[in-house]
Amino acid sequence: MTIRVGIIGQGYVASTLALGLARIKEGEIGLNGIPFQNFIKSYRVEDVEIVSSIDVDANKIGLSLLDVVRMYFPSLSKKYESLERVRVSPGIHLGSTRNLPIKAVGIESEVGLENAIYEIVNEWDKSGVDVLVNLITTEYSEPLESFHHLHKLIRSNEYEGLPATYAYVYAAAVYAETVKPVAFINAIPATVARSRSIVRAFEERNSIVLGDDGASGATPLTSDILEYLAERNRVPRGVVQFNIGGNLDFLALLDETRNKAKEKTKSSVVSDVLGFEVPTFIKPTGYVEYLGDKKFVSMHIETIGFNESIDEIVVNARINDSPALAGLLVDLVRLAKIALNAGYRGTLYEINSFYMKSPGPEGSKSISRIVAYQILVDWLLRMGELTRLPRYSVHNFIPELKKIYDL
Amino acid sequence: MTIRVGIIGQGYVASTLALGLARIKEGEIGLNGIPFQNFIKSYRVEDVEIVSSIDVDANKIGLSLLDVVRMYFPSLSKKYESLERVRVSPGIHLGSTRNLPIKAVGIESEVGLENAIYEIVNEWDKSGVDVLVNLITTEYSEPLESFHHLHKLIRSNEYEGLPATYAYVYAAAVYAETVKPVAFINAIPATVARSRSIVRAFEERNSIVLGDDGASGATPLTSDILEYLAERNRVPRGVVQFNIGGNLDFLALLDETRNKAKEKTKSSVVSDVLGFEVPTFIKPTGYVEYLGDKKFVSMHIETIGFNESIDEIVVNARINDSPALAGLLVDLVRLAKIALNAGYRGTLYEINSFYMKSPGPEGSKSISRIVAYQILVDWLLRMGELTRLPRYSVHNFIPELKKIYDL
Amino acid sequence: MTIRVGIIGQGYVASTLALGLARIKEGEIGLNGIPFQNFIKSYRVEDVEIVSSIDVDANKIGLSLLDVVRMYFPSLSKKYESLERVRVSPGIHLGSTRNLPIKAVGIESEVGLENAIYEIVNEWDKSGVDVLVNLITTEYSEPLESFHHLHKLIRSNEYEGLPATYAYVYAAAVYAETVKPVAFINAIPATVARSRSIVRAFEERNSIVLGDDGASGATPLTSDILEYLAERNRVPRGVVQFNIGGNLDFLALLDETRNKAKEKTKSSVVSDVLGFEVPTFIKPTGYVEYLGDKKFVSMHIETIGFNESIDEIVVNARINDSPALAGLLVDLVRLAKIALNAGYRGTLYEINSFYMKSPGPEGSKSISRIVAYQILVDWLLRMGELTRLPRYSVHNFIPELKKIYDL
Amino acid sequence: MTIRVGIIGQGYVASTLALGLARIKEGEIGLNGIPFQNFIKSYRVEDVEIVSSIDVDANKIGLSLLDVVRMYFPSLSKKYESLERVRVSPGIHLGSTRNLPIKAVGIESEVGLENAIYEIVNEWDKSGVDVLVNLITTEYSEPLESFHHLHKLIRSNEYEGLPATYAYVYAAAVYAETVKPVAFINAIPATVARSRSIVRAFEERNSIVLGDDGASGATPLTSDILEYLAERNRVPRGVVQFNIGGNLDFLALLDETRNKAKEKTKSSVVSDVLGFEVPTFIKPTGYVEYLGDKKFVSMHIETIGFNESIDEIVVNARINDSPALAGLLVDLVRLAKIALNAGYRGTLYEINSFYMKSPGPEGSKSISRIVAYQILVDWLLRMGELTRLPRYSVHNFIPELKKIYDL
Repeated sequence: MTIRVGIIGQGYVASTLALGLARIKEGEIGLNGIPFQNFIKSYRVEDVEIVSSIDVDANKIGLSLLDVVRMYFPSLSKKYESLERVRVSPGIHLGSTRNLPIKAVGIESEVGLENAIYEIVNEWDKSGVDVLVNLITTEYSEPLESFHHLHKLIRSNEYEGLPATYAYVYAAAVYAETVKPVAFINAIPATVARSRSIVRAFEERNSIVLGDDGASGATPLTSDILEYLAERNRVPRGVVQFNIGGNLDFLALLDETRNKAKEKTKSSVVSDVLGFEVPTFIKPTGYVEYLGDKKFVSMHIETIGFNESIDEIVVNARINDSPALAGLLVDLVRLAKIALNAGYRGTLYEINSFYMKSPGPEGSKSISRIVAYQILVDWLLRMGELTRLPRYSVHNFIPELKKIYDL
Repeated sequence: MTIRVGIIGQGYVASTLALGLARIKEGEIGLNGIPFQNFIKSYRVEDVEIVSSIDVDANKIGLSLLDVVRMYFPSLSKKYESLERVRVSPGIHLGSTRNLPIKAVGIESEVGLENAIYEIVNEWDKSGVDVLVNLITTEYSEPLESFHHLHKLIRSNEYEGLPATYAYVYAAAVYAETVKPVAFINAIPATVARSRSIVRAFEERNSIVLGDDGASGATPLTSDILEYLAERNRVPRGVVQFNIGGNLDFLALLDETRNKAKEKTKSSVVSDVLGFEVPTFIKPTGYVEYLGDKKFVSMHIETIGFNESIDEIVVNARINDSPALAGLLVDLVRLAKIALNAGYRGTLYEINSFYMKSPGPEGSKSISRIVAYQILVDWLLRMGELTRLPRYSVHNFIPELKKIYDL
Repeated sequence: MTIRVGIIGQGYVASTLALGLARIKEGEIGLNGIPFQNFIKSYRVEDVEIVSSIDVDANKIGLSLLDVVRMYFPSLSKKYESLERVRVSPGIHLGSTRNLPIKAVGIESEVGLENAIYEIVNEWDKSGVDVLVNLITTEYSEPLESFHHLHKLIRSNEYEGLPATYAYVYAAAVYAETVKPVAFINAIPATVARSRSIVRAFEERNSIVLGDDGASGATPLTSDILEYLAERNRVPRGVVQFNIGGNLDFLALLDETRNKAKEKTKSSVVSDVLGFEVPTFIKPTGYVEYLGDKKFVSMHIETIGFNESIDEIVVNARINDSPALAGLLVDLVRLAKIALNAGYRGTLYEINSFYMKSPGPEGSKSISRIVAYQILVDWLLRMGELTRLPRYSVHNFIPELKKIYDL
Repeated sequence: MTIRVGIIGQGYVASTLALGLARIKEGEIGLNGIPFQNFIKSYRVEDVEIVSSIDVDANKIGLSLLDVVRMYFPSLSKKYESLERVRVSPGIHLGSTRNLPIKAVGIESEVGLENAIYEIVNEWDKSGVDVLVNLITTEYSEPLESFHHLHKLIRSNEYEGLPATYAYVYAAAVYAETVKPVAFINAIPATVARSRSIVRAFEERNSIVLGDDGASGATPLTSDILEYLAERNRVPRGVVQFNIGGNLDFLALLDETRNKAKEKTKSSVVSDVLGFEVPTFIKPTGYVEYLGDKKFVSMHIETIGFNESIDEIVVNARINDSPALAGLLVDLVRLAKIALNAGYRGTLYEINSFYMKSPGPEGSKSISRIVAYQILVDWLLRMGELTRLPRYSVHNFIPELKKIYDL
């Protein structure tokens, strides 16, 4: 059974996702970077298919996915038929790429926002999308006041300052109402799955929203190292984490509003995991071109241990941003569809807490990933979806769980 | 209720443990570095009391603990009465400090091994020890063939090549038979809790043995970083981990046999956690004096992720070896006593898997610490011993567990 | 022969300098961190004496140096008589500590700027200072238009926006005119030795000015690593350098104007040393309290070598900011006095290029420190001031130099 | 004017050298990694031509250089005519690859050593080599007692334990006697340029020998960082340097004798640069396949600075071993020929000190590279060979040198 995926924002991540899936289907590469590989009963990795793609970059609109993929992987010589079939449609801009060196166009500037939304819904309808993935340039948003308010803004064409993400959220809701229930995965920092009114709107439309902000980078590692320390009661005196990269996402973060949004997500992880405040300096720090998509991360933690001993941990990493997120998306798309099939509505903390930096619903804590992983495994077990228990699961060891799940 | 602890090997770790406990009891410092702090119902940290101490260093025998502590902490000016009460008794040597710059003496050289053992048992009897902690200089041993064989060796005074640890294990068994059941915690790499015959001997004497090799250093961190990678299916191409320090333990590892023993423990963690083999270079690498007890660790991991992307993680740490282990021992002593009280016999994987590098019983895998931690929490919950659930426990999140434990 | 030093800004650096000198004079510590130790003929380290100190912190004014030193070294128990003799006098504020948690007062707010300057000159006169060291909170300044203009501003009491450093520079000039020639060492980023009009003003008063911005931190190391690469023609694709600390200097850099000033100094070093532009991200990045005076530095350099091979160098350092600069000041004070004695006027690139981040005079390049060091050694040889040739000097190896200096 | 180069040991370094030169000549890549680029008057990089190659690997003998290069660069598709012209001739083995997974053959096993040497000389004669480069697998050797003794050993066919390098040195001497003067560059740790008798033998034959052990890796960087510290009188408490790689060189170092040889070279650099002993742990530490030719280096230095402050520097690097050395060889070949043309005989410290880990002649110190570089620049200036002064040269700044060289 194929899962029909609609991409919103055909950038580096979406292009890596498209290429990786194509290569996997051709048997060229394995399933590295996809957490649950092919251990999920209902859907194999090969069942994920990109059937629609939207972007606002004038240089991409109208091209095939293969052509866009080649912008990011210029040495790619092979043709992938599955990537030639899909063409990039125009999207809604609303200033989402402001200050970036992109020649951007939005349908709304020609036909107004409401009509633009109907064009988008139409595009999704034609390709019959099951799951939407929001991958537009990092943008920040305050939680949405009410869905009704959003509705009014759009009807009245008064969309000054409206985040593009909210226009897509609205389009997804219209799609859910008029076509069929849908799952919307918000992989960027905009407040979506943490917005009570948006979650309720999806609930009412028998749909699902997951988010916010895919946990692909250094923050999950920080969270797990903090967990490691917390379990030993080695108390951090402070945490410093630098991130610098050379892709469009880091360039976008030079914009102060975007940067602040990201900083908030990242710093809260420390107090969330530890349960108390420690001095931190955790920021997406800068942009320098030569690093490309492979960001440089540097982390410093100083801890106080037994007998007041002071330890230090320094982590330096080079992490490919885009494939890290793309690999998670292959899971998210499948889990979203499974939840949809099983009759879930609104959002699922069980999924968000492992895959997202700022897990919805509103008010949720960012827990250590390693605990989040166990919660997710437990959910999958309950759903009867795991064909094989990961060796690193507590279910293999905790007697009551072994009994319940008959392991 | 006091737990009466007998130390075997009054070196850096034991002295840090003694000092830390004394300072905690005086209210000078907090409980940093002790994983379960004061969240264990039956025993508070303050209940742990060192009542006996054995060593083979001629410069220590006869001194008070306070005097020995000052060898390691020369700037210590304060007097701790509790440390003045206990004096270091002579121990069994059997060449355990060979090649080290220590003037060592063993009782066995004067009275033979069997009598030496009875003197030791006598010393423990006088102070009424509940728990023994083996902290002698790192030594390696093949699994013990049979306890009966050990008995014969000792009776016949044919102890050439016998690890000193086994003489103490034997003494503990005699103590258990003739005085009262005891818990023996083996914090060094000798094969004790992984030795079937030793575990059986303790079972038969209503006693407990925990081990082997306290997981205090870089290996647990490596294990958790591997877990982090495994959960995301980022596949390591290889793992390099260097350790270098300036304490006696690293000096001892210059001895090839000892080094090999340690290397084995450390490398197996990678395949144990991942479930497959990857090229590794993990060794206690060297000794250089200036680092003192604060070792330098450097780790390199290269991984293959989605779309064949190559990431790199480098960790550099400065870790105080002795307090890291001492903090764990404060837990181990209490958990051992709780298990003893509750009627457990032999060894407990639930405890060993979190605290030990090579967890017994024989054939056990070294799992990631973060999973081991959950197993331990579950055991403590079952024992009704947790006064407070750690926030980073799966029990807070997995519905079935919440139901069972009424959380 | 004593060199009488007047401190301007009795903060962490000046207090470390005072304490270090006192401890050296008492024979408690050696000469670590002082580049030319006691190899300078005219003045020994012990000849440097702090005779005057100025500050604007209301909590320091009136205290002895010893009391101020204790604010930074609270565990200091010993009394140093030499530190008790000097008391902190009030200084000129001009908003130099704006946005910092300091209760600051400036004489100028009571008596106007011109009178304030005369009070300062008077204070220096009383103690007979030979050398002044500017260590006030990091401030930035455009090059001074003309000394005459400065004169007019001060006479007319129109000093809104005037950097405090320029008021002290003016005071030094008045001192040079009315008392005796003086050397002014500018250890902060304000534009002083790079200001043509200031250098000329000192020339005309038979005085010397050295600066700007003591090269104490990570930038000299970066410069020498770049030199290492340049000598092998390994071409950097980019350079990233993060700095974060917990002292007042880093707190001050949260102020955008100050930060920009610093960033400029730091980034220019790359193109200055390499001779071409490469993408860089070099900033004093942030403040986090737990690091204290021991900042954390993280550097990433990627290079292209033979056959297009890509290498990577990552440097992580913990560097004590204040003693690093204090150690250089012990040299600078002596070299300044030597130059003054020898009849030099204005500024000396031979000295600035090794000790300063932004060496004057105006238009000078920041060369690699390791080359700057050789230039300085050569100058000292010409002055007949070296009692011993450093082993790492080219003069030991280049035949013509050996001949000239008869080595 | 072409320089005709004979390679001894067609491994990774020699193959990188061959490929890099071919690509440079085709204009595909620049001169990165070659210190003096095209700033040497007599010879351009393009003048270096490999005309002969010797190896003992049965899988390489008879192949063209292009075929061997492809073993190391399997994705290389382009044909380079210059690499097709030269074929690998059989060499002298003498056990030089013992313990390595190589099917090795030596001519000497068929015809005896003396005849083998004459065959080699014959091969060089045919191709008219000017410069020989020794790149055989790392081997160690005691300094050669006397050249006469070597002569006798070879004549009598009693070559048990004779290092293969010495057989080639002897062949080079025969070549120099019977064909024409030659330069022999020893890029491996065997004692050649530091062997008094070998240097004399080359002197007597109007020939040149450079060596020993190309300074391509982490040791020069260590040396320059130590220099940086020394110039600031920050005194190292100790130095740790780990190296681990996955090429044949690291595999060979698993052999204890080879490892010890390397360790000696590396550790002496610390005391040589600093002028006093500090505790060090500097070793080629291990082999792990996944790192390939790009070794991982980790370095730790702790220093004592002003006022007894303790700083720490940690360096982590990934360095491509083979191109690092290959780039230096492009210079060495040219400088050796220039020296030969200019009538130099024996060895030249001016060249060795920059390019070699253990610079000859016997008794020479390993100075910091950055000083060595200046000595080399001075020699090139004296030879009139520099077309352009490096910007980072002291000659640009020291007045006497500017005068002498009219800069």
